[in-house]
Amino acid sequence: MTLTEFSFIDELLKPVSLKSPQVLFGIGDDAAGLRIPEGFDLLVSTDTLVSGVHFLPHWDPYDIAYKAVMVNVSDMAAMAAQPAWVTLALTLPEMNQDWLQAFVKGLKEALHTWSIDLIGGDTTKGPLSITLTIMGLAPQNQALRRSGAKAGDIILVTGTLGAAALAVSFLEKKDLPPKDKKILMHKLLHPKPRIDYLELLRSFATAAIDISDGLSADLNHLCVASGVGACLDEKAIPLHPLVTHYLQEQAVDFVLSGGDDYELCYTVPASKLNQFGEALKLRNLQSYPIGVIEEGSGLRMQTAPGLIKHLTPAGYTHF
Amino acid sequence: MTLTEFSFIDELLKPVSLKSPQVLFGIGDDAAGLRIPEGFDLLVSTDTLVSGVHFLPHWDPYDIAYKAVMVNVSDMAAMAAQPAWVTLALTLPEMNQDWLQAFVKGLKEALHTWSIDLIGGDTTKGPLSITLTIMGLAPQNQALRRSGAKAGDIILVTGTLGAAALAVSFLEKKDLPPKDKKILMHKLLHPKPRIDYLELLRSFATAAIDISDGLSADLNHLCVASGVGACLDEKAIPLHPLVTHYLQEQAVDFVLSGGDDYELCYTVPASKLNQFGEALKLRNLQSYPIGVIEEGSGLRMQTAPGLIKHLTPAGYTHF
Repeated sequence: MTLTEFSFIDELLKPVSLKSPQVLFGIGDDAAGLRIPEGFDLLVSTDTLVSGVHFLPHWDPYDIAYKAVMVNVSDMAAMAAQPAWVTLALTLPEMNQDWLQAFVKGLKEALHTWSIDLIGGDTTKGPLSITLTIMGLAPQNQALRRSGAKAGDIILVTGTLGAAALAVSFLEKKDLPPKDKKILMHKLLHPKPRIDYLELLRSFATAAIDISDGLSADLNHLCVASGVGACLDEKAIPLHPLVTHYLQEQAVDFVLSGGDDYELCYTVPASKLNQFGEALKLRNLQSYPIGVIEEGSGLRMQTAPGLIKHLTPAGYTHF
Repeated sequence: MTLTEFSFIDELLKPVSLKSPQVLFGIGDDAAGLRIPEGFDLLVSTDTLVSGVHFLPHWDPYDIAYKAVMVNVSDMAAMAAQPAWVTLALTLPEMNQDWLQAFVKGLKEALHTWSIDLIGGDTTKGPLSITLTIMGLAPQNQALRRSGAKAGDIILVTGTLGAAALAVSFLEKKDLPPKDKKILMHKLLHPKPRIDYLELLRSFATAAIDISDGLSADLNHLCVASGVGACLDEKAIPLHPLVTHYLQEQAVDFVLSGGDDYELCYTVPASKLNQFGEALKLRNLQSYPIGVIEEGSGLRMQTAPGLIKHLTPAGYTHF
């Protein structure tokens, strides 16, 4: 089979569709048609992955596709929205059949893991990049925003931090023990978006964001949106064991500015914390309280009893 | 003002928002939130413009932004859907303030021309490309698809064809009279998406597509989707006067395979043609009947009374 632009769409992409009932028509018209169920709001987010920036050109195309889906699903998780549909804008230097088959396999498996339907897209020639636009649903007025955190709320994260950023900084380090390298690359390539938190977040959280740029940068976005400040407890920040192992005293600073983990950072009123803890246990989930929201603005960190230092938000920026 | 990734979003992009009431929240969260009005379907389409492919890097960024909006609005027009919202995924080699200010000016003016709200996006570093995802509304089950054409339906186009493709083929030709060059470049850079046809198409048309790749390629997509064939009348195809002037006997072949005009090609039942003609006149619009839908498949063209030739669909392909 030699792939053309049209056979790629007909033979590889169309079979990815789930034909879900809310999709009136998908790939094959000038636009896809959706029927949004009554009582729900639509959430929309777009993320681009550029070759050489978000992934390396020699990566397995299966992993590239997985990551493109994952970063978009993570945005839905942060909004407490159920992901439902995506469009794919794929810019390719050439129609390489092996590459595309592996890419579509990764795309399909990732989309189907979260029951997401591919409803359309655009294929163009140019330097490799992938833009997905994801659409999801939340019961009306129940999408979770960045702006709802209040002074006194407890700040939590959904998992240990730093492994993905450590993988990036070690990409060229050949003398890493293969076991460690495998663990780190898995955290970089296959992070799990926290879709398992949707209902809990809707019931308990006041604000949320996904940690894509780095804990301090993303927590700062949440604080600015909410008009509050935050104080972290240095000892409470959950570090991935390999981050502690390799970076020792630098581990916390590294985690404050290192992104790509796609854990969620969210806030829960202190009065609901016990009840929330029970709900987490019931679902076999573990979150880590790392600090508290405060009046005012800015980030601080308690490094020892009574010792507070000012934090400058730092994280990944493109420019 | 020195632009960073975040000041670009806060100071240039956020003011583009129209704050329309159906947008619950736009730029500034992990996703935008929309309330779809009852009784409407959502239409979604994505188009990417790549530097060096869809535009040249030295073009005025105002024009590049206009074109990015226009090609997406044209997809909504072809579906008889009212454009409403877009997300912008912008990949840039650098934060060039002059370039970005001109780009956002073009983006804002184009979006506001059609009352479209910018609700979110993603800014990344890499080779220049622009992906817009557009969302629009149509009354339930009234979006117009490619698949509704029936044998006997009349095929129409909304304007003269070929000027934009001629502009592309003349881009390097320096000895063109400035007046002609100006007319052609205007057709290439500022085609008008046929939003003025929305209500007429909903009332009269059985199928539609926008002519982005070329008349024969796009009409063929419509025929394949509808399970029909088509016969064009060579003399009825409306050629832009400059296309006739410069290409003479080659003009029709050129128009059959030349894209970028963003006129609509659509079908109307023969029984409704008179009534449709009256409705066009009332709205000061002009369309051109160019042929008829037939049973079977494939494209044909009548070149003289009784003389029919087979047409091979041809148009722009990326690969």
